[in-house]
Amino acid sequence: MNGADRLCETLLANDIDVCFANPGTSEMHFVAALDRRPQMRCVLGLFEGVVTGAADGYARMADKPAATLLHLGPGLANGLANLHNARRARTPMINVVGDHATYFLKHDAPLASDIDSLARPMSQWYGRIGRAEEVEAKTLEAYEAAMRLPGVATLVLPADAAWGELPAGAPPRRASLPPFRSVTPEAVRQAAETLRSGRRVALLLTGRALRADALATADRIAAATGARLLMQTSNSRVERGAGRVAIDNVPYPVDAALAALADIDAMIVVGAKVPVAFFAYPGKPGLLVREDCEIVDLARPGDDLAEALAWLADEIGVAAEAAVRVSRGFTDEMALPGGTLTDDAVALAVARMLPEGAIVCDESITAGARFFGLSQDSAPHDYLRITGGSIGIGIPLAAGAAVACPDRKVVALQADGSGMFTVQGLWTQARERLDIVTVVFANRSYAILEGEMRNVGVNHFGRNAERMLTLDDPALDWVSMARGMGVEAGRAETVEDFVRLFDGALRQRGPFLIEAVV
Amino acid sequence: MNGADRLCETLLANDIDVCFANPGTSEMHFVAALDRRPQMRCVLGLFEGVVTGAADGYARMADKPAATLLHLGPGLANGLANLHNARRARTPMINVVGDHATYFLKHDAPLASDIDSLARPMSQWYGRIGRAEEVEAKTLEAYEAAMRLPGVATLVLPADAAWGELPAGAPPRRASLPPFRSVTPEAVRQAAETLRSGRRVALLLTGRALRADALATADRIAAATGARLLMQTSNSRVERGAGRVAIDNVPYPVDAALAALADIDAMIVVGAKVPVAFFAYPGKPGLLVREDCEIVDLARPGDDLAEALAWLADEIGVAAEAAVRVSRGFTDEMALPGGTLTDDAVALAVARMLPEGAIVCDESITAGARFFGLSQDSAPHDYLRITGGSIGIGIPLAAGAAVACPDRKVVALQADGSGMFTVQGLWTQARERLDIVTVVFANRSYAILEGEMRNVGVNHFGRNAERMLTLDDPALDWVSMARGMGVEAGRAETVEDFVRLFDGALRQRGPFLIEAVV
Repeated sequence: MNGADRLCETLLANDIDVCFANPGTSEMHFVAALDRRPQMRCVLGLFEGVVTGAADGYARMADKPAATLLHLGPGLANGLANLHNARRARTPMINVVGDHATYFLKHDAPLASDIDSLARPMSQWYGRIGRAEEVEAKTLEAYEAAMRLPGVATLVLPADAAWGELPAGAPPRRASLPPFRSVTPEAVRQAAETLRSGRRVALLLTGRALRADALATADRIAAATGARLLMQTSNSRVERGAGRVAIDNVPYPVDAALAALADIDAMIVVGAKVPVAFFAYPGKPGLLVREDCEIVDLARPGDDLAEALAWLADEIGVAAEAAVRVSRGFTDEMALPGGTLTDDAVALAVARMLPEGAIVCDESITAGARFFGLSQDSAPHDYLRITGGSIGIGIPLAAGAAVACPDRKVVALQADGSGMFTVQGLWTQARERLDIVTVVFANRSYAILEGEMRNVGVNHFGRNAERMLTLDDPALDWVSMARGMGVEAGRAETVEDFVRLFDGALRQRGPFLIEAVV
Repeated sequence: MNGADRLCETLLANDIDVCFANPGTSEMHFVAALDRRPQMRCVLGLFEGVVTGAADGYARMADKPAATLLHLGPGLANGLANLHNARRARTPMINVVGDHATYFLKHDAPLASDIDSLARPMSQWYGRIGRAEEVEAKTLEAYEAAMRLPGVATLVLPADAAWGELPAGAPPRRASLPPFRSVTPEAVRQAAETLRSGRRVALLLTGRALRADALATADRIAAATGARLLMQTSNSRVERGAGRVAIDNVPYPVDAALAALADIDAMIVVGAKVPVAFFAYPGKPGLLVREDCEIVDLARPGDDLAEALAWLADEIGVAAEAAVRVSRGFTDEMALPGGTLTDDAVALAVARMLPEGAIVCDESITAGARFFGLSQDSAPHDYLRITGGSIGIGIPLAAGAAVACPDRKVVALQADGSGMFTVQGLWTQARERLDIVTVVFANRSYAILEGEMRNVGVNHFGRNAERMLTLDDPALDWVSMARGMGVEAGRAETVEDFVRLFDGALRQRGPFLIEAVV
């Protein structure tokens, strides 16, 4: 048994049995150790952004971390953009980053770099194993941090700690995970008082407060007090659709967000961050609530958000069995416009046709903007979105969710510009036979940036702006790219095409991609 | 005029007229400023690894930096792996990384991250602009650092420094670039003494010491003294082929490298690093020269390497017009084996058919290993290689070299595994109509890692090792992927196929990809 074996066993002892990986030479002992443990499912990504994005999607659905295996500083660097999203989603994840042997670092070999400096910005927890004897303790520490901070834990495994021999010992410890932190009675009382104050109050939710049961509790509180329910602009996972509570998010466009929050006198935050703009704009505020809006912290990340809501409901005297206002599902006849395909037609078709239990992974950016509103009456589903604004999460996120939930259909709504960032993830979908239908909104531009250019006063684009904001020369042929990576695909140019392809994709198992030309 | 305008003008005043870009919202004022200056050529990459890899290839051939435009921490993060390669190559480059407005950072908006911590590991120079008034001075500082350290300069441009208004003023300053540093007479004397000592001496070159003229000088020194000429394992650019001096590199495999250097008593380094292994292996040394090998520093990066060699030649009394031993070119008849395609057949065919003035970008890893040896008698060409071991440089490197040298054919030798890391770069090749033929060695595995697994004693791969080291399920269809991004392509399964496709690609202009199934 060596350090790498011990690492695998410690992960397995704590129910971590999926490892998304892109290994290199410095991780060969770890690969060999994984190879000795077929109960660990190793999933290869052909680029590390696929690896980390998939680990994010997996954990959002599995409520436990996957491990990742990343090769030295550059491999970690390739995974950082999606770690940024995972960090913002507070997704539990354990990244195992291989490093050179400790005694070898002094040589500054070609692949050496400052892993610590690279890892810290995108990790909620960071640690480095010194030698094989420390593997188990450090791995448990990473696991507890991932589960309870919660968030991204990055653990560096030097090659000599991986190959270092260990005496055969007791099996690794299963971590005695502490429960999520309870909020204080004072925080609950203060929130209750705010709700009773007669002011206009919003409850701002995120994280596990967006699971169906917690949302029902929040709705009972809102119904009893007249408070408004809101969630962050971007959230890790929302349980929604027919029979569940509908909740709006804080709008992304800064003017819309300011308008939506203008009348709020007090905001009770439940694991959430006080809303701020995504970007600064000259002459516009960064804070989206009024300066005089009172912020009341009911719960922070790492607190038991569902429990906090239940206590708050209790404090204000709402019966646990009080009725909940839920979405009713689509009641009218299917009324899709025919003919030329548009963003909205795709969004509406997907919303109407969404199968029960689907997992929607949404990186449709501008093109699918209307989907969220249209789908509150869809069949019950989970909704996963890009959380940190770092594009290139969609294809891997869908892959990870599909690994976590093999019996559920994953529907990925994908903008073309962002999809290209981790297009290699389609291959992983094919290799693992993942049950995903990817809808690419092929608008052939960075549409969001075209809007932002107009925001800075540029309405007539010259050659350089055209060259940086459009993707139409040449047009990306998503059908060819998908087939090139082993994913069946079709192109839709009319609503009828789209409905036929989407229906077919829902009826089959395995990955399918639809290029929706909009 | 705003800060972004001033940045563009300062770049242009210093002959920086190419900007590889992937912009985001925080860079819209910079995009608008670029759009007002059509003399700046903006080249879009659909992923930042394409952007930074292309900037590397451009500067290796242009001997001046390109600018890059990267979006915040995550955009920079996506570009880091190829910045790692550029840092190791000491490629001059100016990365402009957009950031949130300075006053907005306190909000920790979704896309905020610690850019400083991310940038420093992969940058030889790092700076942050505080406000519009500082743009010109900081940009000049970045330029001088890029040119004279030389290396990667990363400059953060906050949105408010970009949009901050400036009074119309004098045109920006052209930097008065200091010359490359001269080495000391003492260093030259010591190197000369070493060469005269009667010991077995190697001259280890890199950087501009590998241009044809400097190599000729080095060869005269070697011929006169019996010293051996060597270059680093990986180098930025080598001028070689028929009529030029042939030089071997330090082998990549550790055992071969140790054997190659075992008899060296003294090593004179010319801009190079003392050879160390790429990776540590249990029981094997990290340093590739003998412990008692004397290291003599003739020149360091940033020194004038060509001048240092000329001075050394002068010191030991070698006439500047002394004969040079050069490669003679292929003298025998074209003798390619026919039939089934192999790595070696591809390498030999490319070496034989290489057109004069070609730029070879080599990321063929294991599959093209023999090309370097076979091509010393090819037509005169430049040879560019992955320098930092961070895979995913090949496709972008070729794109950048082609932008720098529109009249030369670029031949990219590309392993399939590493090619997938930045496969999006094919689209940039198509959009810019770059004259590149990409040869993909489709061995459908991480062949180098299969070898490394055997190095750690694993000869029978189980399911997990298979799943992490092979790429054959499903096989990547490079022809479809290339066509999907607008690049013409063909597949070769026999030598005859390959020769026909390669010949056709050489005769046409524009990008073409050959999937060589080996």
